[in-house]
Amino acid sequence: MQLASVVGTVVATQKDPHLAGRTLLLIQPSTPHGEPTGRALVAVDAVGAGVGERVFYVRGREASYPFLPVEVPTDAAIVGIVDHATVERVGSSTP
Amino acid sequence: MQLASVVGTVVATQKDPHLAGRTLLLIQPSTPHGEPTGRALVAVDAVGAGVGERVFYVRGREASYPFLPVEVPTDAAIVGIVDHATVERVGSSTP
Amino acid sequence: MQLASVVGTVVATQKDPHLAGRTLLLIQPSTPHGEPTGRALVAVDAVGAGVGERVFYVRGREASYPFLPVEVPTDAAIVGIVDHATVERVGSSTP
Amino acid sequence: MQLASVVGTVVATQKDPHLAGRTLLLIQPSTPHGEPTGRALVAVDAVGAGVGERVFYVRGREASYPFLPVEVPTDAAIVGIVDHATVERVGSSTP
Amino acid sequence: MQLASVVGTVVATQKDPHLAGRTLLLIQPSTPHGEPTGRALVAVDAVGAGVGERVFYVRGREASYPFLPVEVPTDAAIVGIVDHATVERVGSSTP
Repeated sequence: MQLASVVGTVVATQKDPHLAGRTLLLIQPSTPHGEPTGRALVAVDAVGAGVGERVFYVRGREASYPFLPVEVPTDAAIVGIVDHATVERVGSSTP
Repeated sequence: MQLASVVGTVVATQKDPHLAGRTLLLIQPSTPHGEPTGRALVAVDAVGAGVGERVFYVRGREASYPFLPVEVPTDAAIVGIVDHATVERVGSSTP
Repeated sequence: MQLASVVGTVVATQKDPHLAGRTLLLIQPSTPHGEPTGRALVAVDAVGAGVGERVFYVRGREASYPFLPVEVPTDAAIVGIVDHATVERVGSSTP
Repeated sequence: MQLASVVGTVVATQKDPHLAGRTLLLIQPSTPHGEPTGRALVAVDAVGAGVGERVFYVRGREASYPFLPVEVPTDAAIVGIVDHATVERVGSSTP
Repeated sequence: MQLASVVGTVVATQKDPHLAGRTLLLIQPSTPHGEPTGRALVAVDAVGAGVGERVFYVRGREASYPFLPVEVPTDAAIVGIVDHATVERVGSSTP
């Protein structure tokens, strides 16, 4: 999963029926240290996240798992709100 | 999902039979602020989008969900037309 | 799906049995305007494409759909030959 | 799969129920020579890895396989701890 | 699929049980002309490839197909050894 910040919302009247009633949030992927990285995307919220919160999201087909048995056509879903992320070591590793 | 603008159309007589009758649109991924980002791609339309509209699309196997039970061999499908996208905060996050 | 040009062929005697008898083509992804972009890859042909033709291809698990019920282990399949692609608008979008 | 180093941990009280009880680790992808490459991500641990260890992880839907029959909504899972990786040749290949 | 050269091996005692007995190879993706491109990765061998050979590999869920009915948790599998790859045209295409 990737870390991200929730930065906005998306409203779409005309959409696939299986997306009806789902919250669509704009999220900005970020590093463990909170810097934005890569481009923002639209994710379906599965945990009640809100703008300003730090989350992690899942991509690909697994993004539809939280909504089973409904087959929601999404490739990104917020599956957790980060309480805290601890980076103990970032850099070269020579195990 | 990714935000994008519909920028053109693709016509293909010779194609996989499960793509027959589907609308193939050229879309240009874009940032929440509307700037183009990354390369254009071909998506199957699932919501009646047209050239000039702002949309979001789903990638991967989920792109075939809107057309089930037909197994359409596509990895990109337009699943919503954006009414408006609100960016409340983009930048570094220090939750 | 992505646009691409067929630029060559790949011959492999020793390969997964489910790839036997399939045509393996080298394709170069391209922009809607025909410029090469990204790295070339090997795709299974599902529509009878040949070297020099402009095509679009599907990636991921959907790439095996054209060959069902055989589960061909491929992540790229050519699913259409482009007659013409019309770009009506490429650039910033402010819907 | 990709090589990576385990560099930290993630704590999330509010998360998808199928992630409950799973260990979430921050991992930094690395080259065969141990240099960090690309951005850090959050992976579910399937082999008892700890911070400082060198591992390899699987992405995509396969990342949920180690936890079947539970459909864990993850797109990254640590599936092995590296004893040693031998690079016999890196560079241009002219077979 | 992508072209690659086999450049090394990975040994892991502690790993997902479904990977037991599988050969894990380090592969370096390459262009049709044999130049390395992108980062090296760990792939499960499905065709008896060895260090120094030129191969093509499949990514994503399809990477587990060669090992069915066992659900091997891998996202990369070597599915062919290249006898020769012929590039007839690489460059701009104006069909």
